[in-house]
Amino acid sequence: MFEFEIEAVDPESGARNGRFHTPHGLIPTPVFAPVGTAATVKALRPSDLHELGATLILSNTYHLYLRPGDELIRDLGGLHTFMGWDGPILTDSGGFQVFSLSDSRKIDAQGVTFQSHLDGSYHRFTPEKSIAIQENLGADIIMAFDECPPPHDYDYVKESLARTHSWLERCLAAKTRTDQALFSIVQGGIFADLREASARFMIDLDLPGYAIGGLAVGETKAEMLATLEILEPVLPQDKPRYLMGVGSPEDVVSGVLRGVDMFDCVLPTRIARNGSAFIAGGRINLRNAQFKQDRNPLMADCNCYTCRHFSRAYIRHLVTAKEILAHILLTIHNVHFLIDLMGQIRQTISDGRFSQFAVQYLSNYAIT
Amino acid sequence: MFEFEIEAVDPESGARNGRFHTPHGLIPTPVFAPVGTAATVKALRPSDLHELGATLILSNTYHLYLRPGDELIRDLGGLHTFMGWDGPILTDSGGFQVFSLSDSRKIDAQGVTFQSHLDGSYHRFTPEKSIAIQENLGADIIMAFDECPPPHDYDYVKESLARTHSWLERCLAAKTRTDQALFSIVQGGIFADLREASARFMIDLDLPGYAIGGLAVGETKAEMLATLEILEPVLPQDKPRYLMGVGSPEDVVSGVLRGVDMFDCVLPTRIARNGSAFIAGGRINLRNAQFKQDRNPLMADCNCYTCRHFSRAYIRHLVTAKEILAHILLTIHNVHFLIDLMGQIRQTISDGRFSQFAVQYLSNYAIT
Repeated sequence: MFEFEIEAVDPESGARNGRFHTPHGLIPTPVFAPVGTAATVKALRPSDLHELGATLILSNTYHLYLRPGDELIRDLGGLHTFMGWDGPILTDSGGFQVFSLSDSRKIDAQGVTFQSHLDGSYHRFTPEKSIAIQENLGADIIMAFDECPPPHDYDYVKESLARTHSWLERCLAAKTRTDQALFSIVQGGIFADLREASARFMIDLDLPGYAIGGLAVGETKAEMLATLEILEPVLPQDKPRYLMGVGSPEDVVSGVLRGVDMFDCVLPTRIARNGSAFIAGGRINLRNAQFKQDRNPLMADCNCYTCRHFSRAYIRHLVTAKEILAHILLTIHNVHFLIDLMGQIRQTISDGRFSQFAVQYLSNYAIT
Repeated sequence: MFEFEIEAVDPESGARNGRFHTPHGLIPTPVFAPVGTAATVKALRPSDLHELGATLILSNTYHLYLRPGDELIRDLGGLHTFMGWDGPILTDSGGFQVFSLSDSRKIDAQGVTFQSHLDGSYHRFTPEKSIAIQENLGADIIMAFDECPPPHDYDYVKESLARTHSWLERCLAAKTRTDQALFSIVQGGIFADLREASARFMIDLDLPGYAIGGLAVGETKAEMLATLEILEPVLPQDKPRYLMGVGSPEDVVSGVLRGVDMFDCVLPTRIARNGSAFIAGGRINLRNAQFKQDRNPLMADCNCYTCRHFSRAYIRHLVTAKEILAHILLTIHNVHFLIDLMGQIRQTISDGRFSQFAVQYLSNYAIT
């Protein structure tokens, strides 16, 4: 279980194709995981996710702990059974969400006390509590409880890193289930020495996978990519690397170029609810009046359900009329877009032409 | 085209099985049409409607005229193409919606002037305009522009009936397309003499189908059923009869008993959005705390997608968290419930045991 096999390596970059084995199936990497915060990828059914080719979804510990409660989910057979998804699931640790509640949480050496965004009630997460919740939820991959610090404050990041490392050891000590892989989260802000120290600390613990955290939280794109370049040679080749909370199509391609195997992001589902669709080289927003009479599909040559059946004009009408079907059709297209991109990435890696593909792909984004 | 074949007649009631032929396919009757007000049956895709066995859907002239506009839909290939539904469609005349805008419309002999509920702008519907819009939309079955009067005011209903009849003649004169069946709408409130006079006037025009309008608008259930009983022997056997805006499972069974062939109603989709599901003999609302840990499907022995995959506890969680999937799963179940009921009705009619079935079915509703 949790074996990671490397199948192909791009000769010119850090990109590689792999297969990560989990109790609920195999995850071909590089992989993009759609986010199902509240035990549902918004607007999609589990059968949609299978049809779209999703092989991993993410769900949020903080949200499920608050509602409907992790013990309820455990009593009902665990998250897979509860939400009717029989493929691999990854849960985050709740750390990132709790730290995002900047006005209503307090960090100490032992954990974090916070107020629920739902009703203001007080709660406390510790490494042990996060693991207990994630064991109740029963995902295939669970995450260590860490602190995600502001990336540019060296002294704070260094102090926070010690806490994150001690919490990781407590997570490992608290873990009881053998059918879940615990990934740690490399922190260290934008600082090469701290990132490298964090990675080396974690590598010594010989974990089944390593996440890269604390990015896409306010640093520049150049700082994010530089951090990936620092970690690429440090992290072990034979373990999956997971860039949390990323991303956009262009960031995913840039991440794979730098050796990243796993991604998750709310972007495709969130922009769908705002009326936007990914297209080659960018996005369109269907609220725009220019689409009023547009008979074309969202994107030329896209073979998703939405693009095979509906015009931009129809989807614009649904967006304007605030129809649920607008969310559904745009979400199908956007998730398809990213999962299809992962397929192109894996194909070009196995064909030995991923670097070319990436250069070409990223140049389209620079132009628009 | 628009042939109506009677296939079986229940020996003890007015119930019959039929087949109504339209340019977009055959409609087995009795049929229930889900409502797609704004060119979408809320929360469902056309592929869902096919999988659920829908053979007719209704869309609203008033709404589509205002947004996105009937001329736009015509330019984009008509309503079937626009919404990606290749089965039969029925459009109402806009009359009922316009008359429902009680504070912002004015009736005269020629038509109705009204204000849009979207932006307060002024518009005018006449019989000719309603037909022109419906020809632009291109449904298989279109409805005459009529007035739906308050059902208990004899003098007003009588005066209104003259208007409805003269408008029907104008609709027939205005109609140019031969690939659309124009149904008239029998009015007359709760008054037997007016209902019969209205039916006879319309029968003389030899239309392809007759709707029964002005019911489910404030009269009692007994008055509604009595009106159906007045019309059952008057309306021709060889034409479909359509009870507009009905209904609930029990009203559908009661209607079929009295010779009705076609129904439409927003009920299954609307109660889904309120968190409710049809079950045998009644409804449940998933907001109710009693379902918090309920592992059962919405309804025992239901084979819809929702009931095959999800518990009441999960759907309650989705309702509570205001997730789009709640609307989707409840809508699938509720539309399945009514379409499955129509299948049971047709089966028991063809088996010669519909009256027994209806008595049994309605007794379940009386008990709860």
